[in-house]
Amino acid sequence: VAALTSGRVEAFSDGVIAIAATLLVLELHVPGAGTDIWAAIGHQLPSLAAYVVSFGTILIFWVNHHALFGSVARVDRTLLFLNGLLLLAISFISFPTAVLGGALEHGAYARSAAALYGAALGFAALCFSALWFYLHRHPELLADQAKASTGGAVRRALLGPALYGASALVALLNAPAALAVDAVVALYFTLPPRHLRR
Amino acid sequence: VAALTSGRVEAFSDGVIAIAATLLVLELHVPGAGTDIWAAIGHQLPSLAAYVVSFGTILIFWVNHHALFGSVARVDRTLLFLNGLLLLAISFISFPTAVLGGALEHGAYARSAAALYGAALGFAALCFSALWFYLHRHPELLADQAKASTGGAVRRALLGPALYGASALVALLNAPAALAVDAVVALYFTLPPRHLRR
Amino acid sequence: VAALTSGRVEAFSDGVIAIAATLLVLELHVPGAGTDIWAAIGHQLPSLAAYVVSFGTILIFWVNHHALFGSVARVDRTLLFLNGLLLLAISFISFPTAVLGGALEHGAYARSAAALYGAALGFAALCFSALWFYLHRHPELLADQAKASTGGAVRRALLGPALYGASALVALLNAPAALAVDAVVALYFTLPPRHLRR
Amino acid sequence: VAALTSGRVEAFSDGVIAIAATLLVLELHVPGAGTDIWAAIGHQLPSLAAYVVSFGTILIFWVNHHALFGSVARVDRTLLFLNGLLLLAISFISFPTAVLGGALEHGAYARSAAALYGAALGFAALCFSALWFYLHRHPELLADQAKASTGGAVRRALLGPALYGASALVALLNAPAALAVDAVVALYFTLPPRHLRR
Repeated sequence: VAALTSGRVEAFSDGVIAIAATLLVLELHVPGAGTDIWAAIGHQLPSLAAYVVSFGTILIFWVNHHALFGSVARVDRTLLFLNGLLLLAISFISFPTAVLGGALEHGAYARSAAALYGAALGFAALCFSALWFYLHRHPELLADQAKASTGGAVRRALLGPALYGASALVALLNAPAALAVDAVVALYFTLPPRHLRR
Repeated sequence: VAALTSGRVEAFSDGVIAIAATLLVLELHVPGAGTDIWAAIGHQLPSLAAYVVSFGTILIFWVNHHALFGSVARVDRTLLFLNGLLLLAISFISFPTAVLGGALEHGAYARSAAALYGAALGFAALCFSALWFYLHRHPELLADQAKASTGGAVRRALLGPALYGASALVALLNAPAALAVDAVVALYFTLPPRHLRR
Repeated sequence: VAALTSGRVEAFSDGVIAIAATLLVLELHVPGAGTDIWAAIGHQLPSLAAYVVSFGTILIFWVNHHALFGSVARVDRTLLFLNGLLLLAISFISFPTAVLGGALEHGAYARSAAALYGAALGFAALCFSALWFYLHRHPELLADQAKASTGGAVRRALLGPALYGASALVALLNAPAALAVDAVVALYFTLPPRHLRR
Repeated sequence: VAALTSGRVEAFSDGVIAIAATLLVLELHVPGAGTDIWAAIGHQLPSLAAYVVSFGTILIFWVNHHALFGSVARVDRTLLFLNGLLLLAISFISFPTAVLGGALEHGAYARSAAALYGAALGFAALCFSALWFYLHRHPELLADQAKASTGGAVRRALLGPALYGASALVALLNAPAALAVDAVVALYFTLPPRHLRR
C-alpha cells in the first residue's frame, strides 16, 4: 500500500478501539421512571461486571496492538487485512458483552452467553496472534530491533485464544466463573512480554 | 481553504470513517430475557452477514481514501465538498445495513432492502469516483508523482458504482445473492491498483 | 493553559465534531419487520432531509472552525471555555434534528420543531461568533498574519446567528421553508471569506 | 511499555474523552409523534441540565488530563493502568447522567440518583488524583520542570473527590442542589492551578 504507513494504520486502529470501548456504556439500561435506583443497579451488577471486563480487555488489546505496530516498519495489504479483521473482532465485543450481562441478570441461558463471550474474545485474540504470526513469517516488514523477538511474541499471543477457549469450556459449567477467567486473562496480558521484563 | 492541508482533511475523514464502522454493531439486536441465545443468533445470521460486509466495505473505502489523499498536494473548496459528500455516504451505510439485515431475517421486502443497500454503497462509490475525476481534471492539486496515473484511477474507481449498480439489479431477483456480490466487490477493491502491482 | 496548544485543541474539537456528524444516522428509524421499505423511506424523507442539512452544517462548522484555529497562535482559558461551549452546541444538534424529522413526518408541531432547530443552529453560530469576537479583542492570541482580518471575520460570523434567527422566524410560518433556509445558510458558509476570494 | 509514549496515550485518551462527551446527547429523549414539543422539552429540562453539567465536567477532565500528561516524560504500566481506570470512569458518566435526568423528571428516587451521580463523578476524580499521586511518588516519570509542583497538584486533585463526596451528601437532602454543587465544582476546576496563576 503506497504510503499507508504503520503510524497511519495505528491512528485509525486507535480510533476504532477507542470508540469500541466507549460505546460499551450504551448497553447498560437506564432504569425506567419510578424504579428504585439502587435495586435496579443491584440487579444490573452482572452487566456492570461484564462492562468492566470488556472495557479492560479492549484497553489491553490497545496496549498490545500498539506494541505490535511499534515493531512494524512497513505495512502490506495482508497485514492491513488481518488488522481489519482484528478491528472487526474488537468492535464486535459490545454485542456479546450485552448478551452476557442480560443473560446473567435473568438467569436463563447464562452459560451459553458466557461461552459466546469467551468465543468472541478468543476470536479477537486469534486475530491478534495471526498478526504476530504473519510478521514472524515476513521479517522484511519488521523494524530491525524487533526481528529477534517475534517467535516469543507469537507464543505469547497464542496464549490468548487458548485461555479464552478454556474460558468458553468453563462457561459450559458456570457462567460467572467463566467471566472471572476472562478478567484474569486480561490482567495477565497487562504484564509486559517476558523479554522486556527484568 | 487557507491552511486546510490534505493531512488535516484525512485525519477528520479517518475519524468519521472509524466511527461509521464501529457504530455498525449497535444495529445488532441483543436477544431479550429468557431467549435461547444460539437460536437468536442463528436467526440474526443475515444481520451478522450484512454487518461483516458493511464493516469490510467501509474499511476498504478507508484504504482507498487514504491512497487518494496520498496523491493530493493541495485541497480546494470543491474537493472538500466532494469529500464531505463521500463522508455523508459512508456514515449513512449503517442505515441500509440494518434495513437489509432486518428484511433478510423476516423474509419480507428483502429484495427491496438489498436494492437499497446496493444503491447506498453505489452512491458512496460514485462520490469516490467523483473525487478522482475532479483530481484528474485539476492536476494542479496533485503531487507531482501522482499526475500520470489519475486516468487509471478514475477508470478503476468507476468500477465501483457499476458493480454496485449490478448488485442492485441482482437484488431484484435474489437478495442474498446481491449481498454476496457486494462482498465480492469489497474483496476486489482490496487489490492494489494495477499500476502498483507487478 | 500550559502547553495546551491550538493544535491539540483542534484535534480534540475535530474528534467531537466528527462524532457529532456520524451519530446523526442513529436517529433514522429502521422500518419494523414486514414493512414496505420504500414506503417507510418515503415516509422518512423529512428525517432524511434534516439529516443531510445537519450533516452538511456540522461539516461546514468544521471547515470554519479550522480556519479560525489556523489564525490562533496561543490558547487561553477563556478561548478554551468558548470553544467548549461551541462543541456542546454542535454535539447537541442531533437532538433538534431528530425532533424536526419526527415532527415533519407526523405533521404535528412541525413549526415548533423547525423553530427549535433554527434556534439550536443559531446558538452554535453564536458561540462561533463569540470565539471570533474574543480573538478580535485579544490580538495577542493571534498569529501575526491574522491580526488584520478579525474585524471582517466577526462581521461574517455574526451573519450566522442572524440568518438562523431569521430561519426560526420563517419556521413560525412554514417548517419546510425554514429547513430550506437552513440549508441555504450552510451553502453560504461554504464560500470562502471575502478577503480570501479574488 | 516500549515506545508507548505519553503523546500516544494522550491521543487515545482524547479519543475516549471526546466520544464520552459526544455520546451524552443520545440519552435525551426525542418526543413521540404528536407531542407538544415545548412541553416535552420543558419536561426534560432536568435531563438537559444534567447533560450540560456532564458535558462541561468531561471537558474539564480533558483540560486537566492534558495538563497532567504535559508533565509526564515517560509512561510505565502502572500509569497506563491508572489512566485506563480514569477513562473507564469518564466513559461511564453518561449512565448516571441519564439516571439522574430521568429521576429528576419523574420525581421519584431523585435523591438516590443525585447521590449516584456525585459518586460516579467522585470516582472519576479519585482516579485522577491517583494518577497525580503516583507521579508524585515516581518523579522519574516526570519532565524536569514538573518535578517541583506535583505535591500541589495532588492536593488540588484531591479536592475533586472531596467536593463530589460532599455533593453526594447534599444529594441525600436535595437532588437539584447536589447537581448545582457538581456544576460549581466543574467551574472551580476551570481555574488554572495556583502555581500557574499570578
